[in-house]
Amino acid sequence: MKASIALQILPLSTDKGRLPVIEDVIEYLQKQPVRQLVTPFETVLEGEWEDLFPILGKAIELAGSQADNVFANVKINYGEILSIDEKLEKYSASAD
Amino acid sequence: MKASIALQILPLSTDKGRLPVIEDVIEYLQKQPVRQLVTPFETVLEGEWEDLFPILGKAIELAGSQADNVFANVKINYGEILSIDEKLEKYSASAD
Amino acid sequence: MKASIALQILPLSTDKGRLPVIEDVIEYLQKQPVRQLVTPFETVLEGEWEDLFPILGKAIELAGSQADNVFANVKINYGEILSIDEKLEKYSASAD
Amino acid sequence: MKASIALQILPLSTDKGRLPVIEDVIEYLQKQPVRQLVTPFETVLEGEWEDLFPILGKAIELAGSQADNVFANVKINYGEILSIDEKLEKYSASAD
Repeated sequence: MKASIALQILPLSTDKGRLPVIEDVIEYLQKQPVRQLVTPFETVLEGEWEDLFPILGKAIELAGSQADNVFANVKINYGEILSIDEKLEKYSASAD
Repeated sequence: MKASIALQILPLSTDKGRLPVIEDVIEYLQKQPVRQLVTPFETVLEGEWEDLFPILGKAIELAGSQADNVFANVKINYGEILSIDEKLEKYSASAD
Repeated sequence: MKASIALQILPLSTDKGRLPVIEDVIEYLQKQPVRQLVTPFETVLEGEWEDLFPILGKAIELAGSQADNVFANVKINYGEILSIDEKLEKYSASAD
Repeated sequence: MKASIALQILPLSTDKGRLPVIEDVIEYLQKQPVRQLVTPFETVLEGEWEDLFPILGKAIELAGSQADNVFANVKINYGEILSIDEKLEKYSASAD
């Protein structure tokens, strides 16, 4: 089934600092062969549910390997959904 | 690893109506052998990550079997986290 | 207009510690004359939009007076909505 | 105080259809003199809290004037926060 997952990681307790953990998660996501877009508060992934859901799990586990306490906000859209491109085509990608 | 997952399902496109889909998901969750609490906007699950993550996946798929387009808000807390009881012990469970 | 607002505060940068800031926000909310329920991840307020929206603003500002960097997750339901009681009547308030 | 607000509107009950309501809210936001970015799930606003918070309220009310039941996800970051540009400078704005 088609799906879109938006992931925001907020490491709450870490010796490493919040940003390095977030950047490591984004680096992991960007290696995955699914369409994606980094936005200010979340990274949006698009593809097949069967592919995306395990990626979500591994991203949380990766953050958890670097921070004692990880909070994540996840939005899931599942089924007959609009694509990233369909959602953004009316709006320029550049910040205004 | 210890985890807590809060799930809110918002069926966006369904012949069945939003509430029956939400209630079916809650019924599924309540059959799972993990500590949980239904709150006005989300159901909070608590347990081991290895148990909770597959339950999250199946809950989304269940909603998707009954609605063409499912939106879900998911909060994940992973690692050295407070339990439901520890979070609520200062506050009475009754609405005020 | 009728509304329901759920507020989760995550102080990201504070000398005081996350929990004391969260507890101060809940203490402020509990003094407000609106129906409310503390849940593991968020406090749910219910009432008239005109009353609730300023309370949301003051809660954020209160957190911001005690932490350098505050993150908040807010859910807003506005219009012909279900009440807290209507949402929970099928489910026991006690954690299972 | 500096702030960033991300707003996702999900009209739950409307004769008009979900997308036209969402587009009207985005059109309203784009007329406001604050830096902003439309992303697949939310529009991110950046500026002074005193300016942004009333815009959030008016956006909700606008959606509520066109849909009987409006759900909104709002993220608020308040205080010493990173700007949209600082968050995105490492990542190309184009979907990958």
